Amino acid sequence: MRKTIVGITVVGKDREGVVAQFTSFVFQNGGNVEKVNQNVIKGLFGMYLEVSFTSKINFKQLDSGLQKLGKKLRMEVSTHSETGAEKNIAIFATKEQHCLKEILSAKHALTGKISVVVGTERALAPLAKKAKIPFVVIEDRSQEKAEEKLLKICKKYQVDLIVLARYMRILTPNFVWRYPNRIINIHPSLLPAFPGSLAYAQAFERGTKIVGVTSHYVTENLDQGPIIFQDSFKVIPEDTLESIKKRGQKLEATTLLKAVKMHLDNKLEVRWRKVHTKSK
Amino acid sequence: MRKTIVGITVVGKDREGVVAQFTSFVFQNGGNVEKVNQNVIKGLFGMYLEVSFTSKINFKQLDSGLQKLGKKLRMEVSTHSETGAEKNIAIFATKEQHCLKEILSAKHALTGKISVVVGTERALAPLAKKAKIPFVVIEDRSQEKAEEKLLKICKKYQVDLIVLARYMRILTPNFVWRYPNRIINIHPSLLPAFPGSLAYAQAFERGTKIVGVTSHYVTENLDQGPIIFQDSFKVIPEDTLESIKKRGQKLEATTLLKAVKMHLDNKLEVRWRKVHTKSK
Amino acid sequence: MRKTIVGITVVGKDREGVVAQFTSFVFQNGGNVEKVNQNVIKGLFGMYLEVSFTSKINFKQLDSGLQKLGKKLRMEVSTHSETGAEKNIAIFATKEQHCLKEILSAKHALTGKISVVVGTERALAPLAKKAKIPFVVIEDRSQEKAEEKLLKICKKYQVDLIVLARYMRILTPNFVWRYPNRIINIHPSLLPAFPGSLAYAQAFERGTKIVGVTSHYVTENLDQGPIIFQDSFKVIPEDTLESIKKRGQKLEATTLLKAVKMHLDNKLEVRWRKVHTKSK
Amino acid sequence: MRKTIVGITVVGKDREGVVAQFTSFVFQNGGNVEKVNQNVIKGLFGMYLEVSFTSKINFKQLDSGLQKLGKKLRMEVSTHSETGAEKNIAIFATKEQHCLKEILSAKHALTGKISVVVGTERALAPLAKKAKIPFVVIEDRSQEKAEEKLLKICKKYQVDLIVLARYMRILTPNFVWRYPNRIINIHPSLLPAFPGSLAYAQAFERGTKIVGVTSHYVTENLDQGPIIFQDSFKVIPEDTLESIKKRGQKLEATTLLKAVKMHLDNKLEVRWRKVHTKSK
Repeated sequence: MRKTIVGITVVGKDREGVVAQFTSFVFQNGGNVEKVNQNVIKGLFGMYLEVSFTSKINFKQLDSGLQKLGKKLRMEVSTHSETGAEKNIAIFATKEQHCLKEILSAKHALTGKISVVVGTERALAPLAKKAKIPFVVIEDRSQEKAEEKLLKICKKYQVDLIVLARYMRILTPNFVWRYPNRIINIHPSLLPAFPGSLAYAQAFERGTKIVGVTSHYVTENLDQGPIIFQDSFKVIPEDTLESIKKRGQKLEATTLLKAVKMHLDNKLEVRWRKVHTKSK
Repeated sequence: MRKTIVGITVVGKDREGVVAQFTSFVFQNGGNVEKVNQNVIKGLFGMYLEVSFTSKINFKQLDSGLQKLGKKLRMEVSTHSETGAEKNIAIFATKEQHCLKEILSAKHALTGKISVVVGTERALAPLAKKAKIPFVVIEDRSQEKAEEKLLKICKKYQVDLIVLARYMRILTPNFVWRYPNRIINIHPSLLPAFPGSLAYAQAFERGTKIVGVTSHYVTENLDQGPIIFQDSFKVIPEDTLESIKKRGQKLEATTLLKAVKMHLDNKLEVRWRKVHTKSK
Repeated sequence: MRKTIVGITVVGKDREGVVAQFTSFVFQNGGNVEKVNQNVIKGLFGMYLEVSFTSKINFKQLDSGLQKLGKKLRMEVSTHSETGAEKNIAIFATKEQHCLKEILSAKHALTGKISVVVGTERALAPLAKKAKIPFVVIEDRSQEKAEEKLLKICKKYQVDLIVLARYMRILTPNFVWRYPNRIINIHPSLLPAFPGSLAYAQAFERGTKIVGVTSHYVTENLDQGPIIFQDSFKVIPEDTLESIKKRGQKLEATTLLKAVKMHLDNKLEVRWRKVHTKSK
Repeated sequence: MRKTIVGITVVGKDREGVVAQFTSFVFQNGGNVEKVNQNVIKGLFGMYLEVSFTSKINFKQLDSGLQKLGKKLRMEVSTHSETGAEKNIAIFATKEQHCLKEILSAKHALTGKISVVVGTERALAPLAKKAKIPFVVIEDRSQEKAEEKLLKICKKYQVDLIVLARYMRILTPNFVWRYPNRIINIHPSLLPAFPGSLAYAQAFERGTKIVGVTSHYVTENLDQGPIIFQDSFKVIPEDTLESIKKRGQKLEATTLLKAVKMHLDNKLEVRWRKVHTKSK
């Protein structure tokens, strides 16, 4: 019989005994802990358990048991399982349209459904409307409030994958930990070079002769998540910052789309912060 | 009944299923997994399990079961438990004598026994001899061979705590992971400022007006381990690099000794890469 | 006869020949180039010439000649000379009041005159008013516009020294280069540790056992300017982020004031990015 | 009449007045100071003056005057002028042969003469011998002594350009400052990513999907000099560290050779730490 893999995320205020209680629960329910990742940042605890079951499981019952345990320990728990059903995609964006446009134009070629587009402003609403996809705007300047709303939207649309299409806000661990290896970002440099903002300007100022872009999974460490795919071009003597930016943005769009497709087609596997492309 | 805490380290070539098999074993033997840390660096897997038992355990039997499992998975396993017995201390050094001297001169005030001094050269042999402590020299230039010998020595003397008294070689994860929060180093700067070598020269060149030293637990990330204790002094206009170094070295010795004492007296607790000093 | 020292700053769009023309001008007017610093950032050129004259000079005539040359090369030029006259001080602040308060309360003890307080908001206007010092608010979100206004104010009040009393905006090279070693900032960490924002939170999260503050001259490299003075305190086990912040802010105020006094009393000399305290 | 450009480097223990005296000398001899760069590292002063003359100059007389001034100020001075004569090239290497081999095999296509090969060991002596080029070995472990010998060799062969063909020692400012923009290095990464040693291993560990190499001028800041040329390749799922290294080394050889050719053909110009490729 095939193994069933269930991902469990636990997030809440750091307190003792959480690891012990959740791993115990898993064992008592016949599961094996394949991976455990935990972290604490500014007093917030996050744990990701990847559990395998060799016997058939009642997923609903398991989830309800975990929810109960979470309530007892005042931890927010969510479970995620690859069911084979069509995946729901949320796209987060700000005002640059090239990446969103590219993905929307390829929507019929995706093994998933773009369920919602979220903007930090209204600029891209028309694009979403034209593609007949719900558009939600979240303008809160408070990071906390904004992420609360994001989490609600993701729950509402049962989002499996989040795509950051030049989304210009930083996501905190409180959000990121709930979607381990399920948030894809595009960064305008060949990471690890030029992290942070204004990457093209930095590369131009430094005088690099090759400029590129990186699609990667998002972790709690900004611009340090596992790299999915990179692409690049050569700088020519005539290039200005503007001409570099222009070519870069084209590459951002195609590179992000490529990463999204690879993810949806289950071609990617993350082991120890590194993405491996499955041969089949 | 009081909980018994057992620390288990597992080190070996990365392979799937190791986490699952060890955590399962622990549960089947009545243990709770309080902490799990794992890491992979250059294909080497390291895991630290902190396990609690509420019922009485047969430590020998547990250890032998773990060794058997380790053999099966081709992983090296070691278990460690706070038994209340006197702790064995190994001091690693190179040629600077001030730190070693300070600790040796305080040896009767330590709640532990300095069992062995290891040098990367013979320079400090006389100091150890005078204190009637075995001195071992390991001059291998190959990191791998040197660490193999270090591990043998630590096993032979059943070392509980390793003190790096200006030990001028880097320890790899393969060594460090076997002694989680049981290796104490002294670094000649107020970390995180001026990591790496030549810290006083760096501080002097930068023109800082306060210079200090840091004692910390050693992790796989050089100079980034949990900070135990720091001390500092003010730079005066007349200071030269030499005068700063001189005052700094005095502080290194006292700061390292202080950290070692706090550790031996069970006053330190590491939670999430941060040292907490127990109130009692 | 005593040497007269004149500082000349030249800022403008990078173009060839500027160094040659200004150094030539200086020589033809009997000056010696003691120091030359030049830099280009994002196409903006900045040069600082420190020139000595052994014969008596007509400062007005020199300045007018430099202005003429500047106009010809489309460069903005300003000259600065230690005349012995009372120095004009501008304080830039945002909303934290502890540093501004400390300096205002010591205003009669300063060998200089606080000529103006500039705020990025109105929060500290009452403090300035009470001290009978003009308060100017600059709320522009555009960095460029804000700095244009700042430059005008500094010209109007013939400002010799700028004090950043928890001023929460970054100054660009275009501003900074015009006041070489004449802008003093206070940073809430022992630089070079914890540059950037939220320094106390970073130190607390990292678990450092010594926390401090740094007053320094401002250069084009954020938080990397020459260190004037540093002070620190030890962290105790009971400390929270809040208690650390509270103690830190007290230290910020006294440390900034101390640096300002040292500067006004001509006790500081910068050589090669390092501050030397003059013995007399 | 065409301008004559003379480069003057001054290196010695930091002391006051050096800038003033050398720039004065230049002016009194009819020169214009086009560029001045100075730096002090660990008490060592280095200055580079680029001087233009519009009238005909007696180069020998100028040089002898500068040498005299240098002697007076206890500074080592060297002058360098583009005479149009064939350039002398020194290649520094260690034991990897791929870069040296590539350059030697192209020696007849270079607008310059490979005058000497220097090795830190004897490994590459046969290659040099086969190409009938003098080979000198410098095995001193003392950096200071080694560089003294290097300077002598470079003087002896009147070296215009130094090529670091996988030369595995670091050059100090004392050496580097004497050959401004005349030392070319090859680094096995797309700088600024992965500076330091073991760059391929770092890139592989990080999981980058594009790997590359960088040829650059050497400055006092390791791996931060102006970038001349970069080249890269895509990582495929089957790649191992070894296969990446293999492809990388091929690219190192061609990229270094390309940079050397561009330099010798006067196609490169450095302005503000950035290499500009001349259109013709």
